Amino acid sequence: MKTLTISVTMLLVLCVSNARVSADSPADTARASLENYFKAWNEPDQAKRATLLAKTWAENGTYTDPTAHADGRDGLVKHIQGVMMQMKGFSITRTSEIEFHHDVFRFDWVMKDASGATITTGVDYGAFNESGAITKIVGFFGPVPTLK
Amino acid sequence: MKTLTISVTMLLVLCVSNARVSADSPADTARASLENYFKAWNEPDQAKRATLLAKTWAENGTYTDPTAHADGRDGLVKHIQGVMMQMKGFSITRTSEIEFHHDVFRFDWVMKDASGATITTGVDYGAFNESGAITKIVGFFGPVPTLK
Repeated sequence: MKTLTISVTMLLVLCVSNARVSADSPADTARASLENYFKAWNEPDQAKRATLLAKTWAENGTYTDPTAHADGRDGLVKHIQGVMMQMKGFSITRTSEIEFHHDVFRFDWVMKDASGATITTGVDYGAFNESGAITKIVGFFGPVPTLK
Repeated sequence: MKTLTISVTMLLVLCVSNARVSADSPADTARASLENYFKAWNEPDQAKRATLLAKTWAENGTYTDPTAHADGRDGLVKHIQGVMMQMKGFSITRTSEIEFHHDVFRFDWVMKDASGATITTGVDYGAFNESGAITKIVGFFGPVPTLK
């Protein structure tokens, strides 16, 4: 009976251990990272924005959209600051589910001005590392250009 | 008069030189690389496919879609071979213009079977190097998933 009790305990430990690994998979963490990424885009306080990205944006992560390129976490914190100075009161909201495969993802978003009018829509592609931190986002504005 | 003649000649040389640099920019070469990339996907002869990709796919380039990941040029040549063995007679065609910014791009495509029926649509985004060779393609199938 003692041997059986130990085995059951070991099985329980294994089950709990597997459940924890599953709950903390890189893709799950990346999903949480992207929630913080959106919070960061909507956080006017630079120190709070840096804290949000510290947990979720790889130190050497890169951000690239048609109008800008930002190297590293500090680069992104400052880039968002620059956009906020240019377009006061804007908001960025995700408008699709996030699709993941391998270590990559995509999602749609909309940027609105302070009155709620759409400034631009877009799609972001990106990648995450083994810790679930975002290493890259590449954005495009509007729909894919139609064939001429 | 002699001095003036030399100056005009130099101006002409500068103009021609600038025109050549512009015609061979990395983005222009990347556009040609992507034409070869589509030819490679539709080329059943493995040696010809390897030749097409040798000119246009970086040696360490990576290809990733929801069902596959291929490391390196040889990996992509073999991956296409595998798809051809699974789906005889398929074709892949670009269905949008290619949008470029910085060193990245995106475009839509459709995959059809031998009868011309659509197997799947998709979007590829990717990157190219300073030589205009493709270093990365990441594909997604179908539209971005709508918000639940």
